[in-house]
Amino acid sequence: MSSLGASTSRFPAASYADRIARAGALARESGLDGLLITPGPDLRYLLGSRAESFERLTCLVIPANGETASVVVPRLELASLTESAASELGVRVLDWVDGVDPYALVAGVLPAPARTAVTDAMPALHLLPLAQELGALPVLATGVLRELRMVKDEAEIDALRRAGRAIDRVHARMGEFLTVGRTEAEVAADITAAILDEGHTEAAFVIVGSGPHGADPHHEVSDRVIESGDVVVIDIGGPVDPGYNSDSTRTYCMGEPDPAVAARVAVLEAAQAAAVDLVRPGVAAEAVDAVARDLLAAEGLADAFVHRTGHGIGLSVHEEPYIVSGNAIELTEGMAFSVEPGIYFPGQWGARIEDIVVVTADGCESLNTRPHGLTILPG
Amino acid sequence: MSSLGASTSRFPAASYADRIARAGALARESGLDGLLITPGPDLRYLLGSRAESFERLTCLVIPANGETASVVVPRLELASLTESAASELGVRVLDWVDGVDPYALVAGVLPAPARTAVTDAMPALHLLPLAQELGALPVLATGVLRELRMVKDEAEIDALRRAGRAIDRVHARMGEFLTVGRTEAEVAADITAAILDEGHTEAAFVIVGSGPHGADPHHEVSDRVIESGDVVVIDIGGPVDPGYNSDSTRTYCMGEPDPAVAARVAVLEAAQAAAVDLVRPGVAAEAVDAVARDLLAAEGLADAFVHRTGHGIGLSVHEEPYIVSGNAIELTEGMAFSVEPGIYFPGQWGARIEDIVVVTADGCESLNTRPHGLTILPG
Repeated sequence: MSSLGASTSRFPAASYADRIARAGALARESGLDGLLITPGPDLRYLLGSRAESFERLTCLVIPANGETASVVVPRLELASLTESAASELGVRVLDWVDGVDPYALVAGVLPAPARTAVTDAMPALHLLPLAQELGALPVLATGVLRELRMVKDEAEIDALRRAGRAIDRVHARMGEFLTVGRTEAEVAADITAAILDEGHTEAAFVIVGSGPHGADPHHEVSDRVIESGDVVVIDIGGPVDPGYNSDSTRTYCMGEPDPAVAARVAVLEAAQAAAVDLVRPGVAAEAVDAVARDLLAAEGLADAFVHRTGHGIGLSVHEEPYIVSGNAIELTEGMAFSVEPGIYFPGQWGARIEDIVVVTADGCESLNTRPHGLTILPG
Repeated sequence: MSSLGASTSRFPAASYADRIARAGALARESGLDGLLITPGPDLRYLLGSRAESFERLTCLVIPANGETASVVVPRLELASLTESAASELGVRVLDWVDGVDPYALVAGVLPAPARTAVTDAMPALHLLPLAQELGALPVLATGVLRELRMVKDEAEIDALRRAGRAIDRVHARMGEFLTVGRTEAEVAADITAAILDEGHTEAAFVIVGSGPHGADPHHEVSDRVIESGDVVVIDIGGPVDPGYNSDSTRTYCMGEPDPAVAARVAVLEAAQAAAVDLVRPGVAAEAVDAVARDLLAAEGLADAFVHRTGHGIGLSVHEEPYIVSGNAIELTEGMAFSVEPGIYFPGQWGARIEDIVVVTADGCESLNTRPHGLTILPG
């Protein structure tokens, strides 16, 4: 009994060998004895494993001293490792059956007490007994792993490109789904099917924010009927093999827009373009946020832009680097993130424009290429 | 941006008020200052909330001193609470925006240092900063909450009954999906659609273990083609509103079975029935496991039965009580769990029979009523 949808797709084993070696080295530099990685995006990143066990401990142990990594895994779930790179990498497999203490298996391959960092997805169910067994409270591995996960290699960028093209094809078909008289939920159901049709393995999220619902950046869908004249925010995405996500927003109008609406969306389009234009190595993440924010503020829309400008993307839909005030991290080649300013007028309407971009040697590549302005559909 | 599939369905607010009050009282009896519940089945149980936030902290804080509960929630995700019982219950809502320390909000409604218990689903991402802010390492809330969650009330049992009937309808249609010449994956895709058609909100798991694959209790699906003469284990389930799960296994045979196979499955059927017959208040969970195990052992099948007899079920597919050797907990009225012995012959075939049962005043009610023996389909 476990969930559906596993895929055998992953990168060549050498990619994972390199990642594990670099993660171990970064752990050593941080003064740690090892990294403990339970199922989630970090385990997928380091081992190509889509294991999803919750109740029984599955844990990759990467010693900081360069010794061979181990994976502790329930014997009943050994099959979950077969699609991963574990066997090709020569990772030690420490399988366990009910009655064995899996936390002691983890502690057994580390010094005592062990200073460890854990994946941020590790549930309390495992973290608390591990802390006891290790004799020390772990820290979060986010700081250690983000240097690795933030900067994508060519194969990862290629996966993100495929994801971007797939979600662009869904936006290109929006006129098939988004019509006056249908409910947001009906539109969303068709979009969900199209996301799968166009090559995603899952529809991770579908936001259809019509009319006043577009003014809530976290609205998902409802039974509201699309009306003539509505401005509609469509924010959609999901993973393509081997797990890299798309995420793109476009704003539609059912019929010709009110000129005041069109003018404001034109300002938003300029703000989004200015932010994308600024992206290059050496620029601070917060500077990209600031350029969009300042341009909107100059047009009197400061209060309408209520969220950060973007988020990193890869195996997680939201990951580092965050494009937000206060994040001084310098962009480097290979980082991938969203640029998605929005404007929201509570009770009335909203708009958002979102592309995923990848930092190149001297600028960035936008992975979404659909027209950015208000797309007019039949009213 | 968040995941799909939320539903507004939940129980009346009074149910949640009662659960929160009882959870607080149990925390006090355990010498704790409070319970901290992030999204997952415990939050659904206590507040009727299907919030799924990961990155930004959402946390229900139940003080053990009987004071009003609070929920810390990102302002952008306030909408996720509207379908919950929070507003009807008068729970204090402490919303926060980027820049505010949500962990300090949690600590602010508890004494310092605070002895707390956390839901087992709380990710390290939140648990580690909370431990620092609270000045004490939390313990798992499993022990406190299991007394509550293990014993279902009438509304919960009704939801489990609906789930059981829905999955029985899928098994009743198995001849439409499971035919010689199709792959396990093709059969599973049809079963997935039927699980949704018959009233589930999701197909949580679909195991199609044909021929030798049936001998691996954790096999899911593959591209193996179903052959004439195959014994096929079908283990399927998922949630119905408001989140309660079905889980039922039946074993099929493509054509007339080999007499030796039929004889062994008859023994398994008797073992499963004997275990169900034993279920009543006052019996130890491990005794139910033992009766099935002993009966199989008496027929020389001890080594073929490689897993526990069952698991509790409700908002989680696997929860307490576990029907396993070493679990001396006494069954009480309202407990719901699977009874699912299996026999496995590596490289050859396997069989499993699984019903969900609910403990009644003097026995149990089986929520799955499809015929238990080998179901013969066209070979």
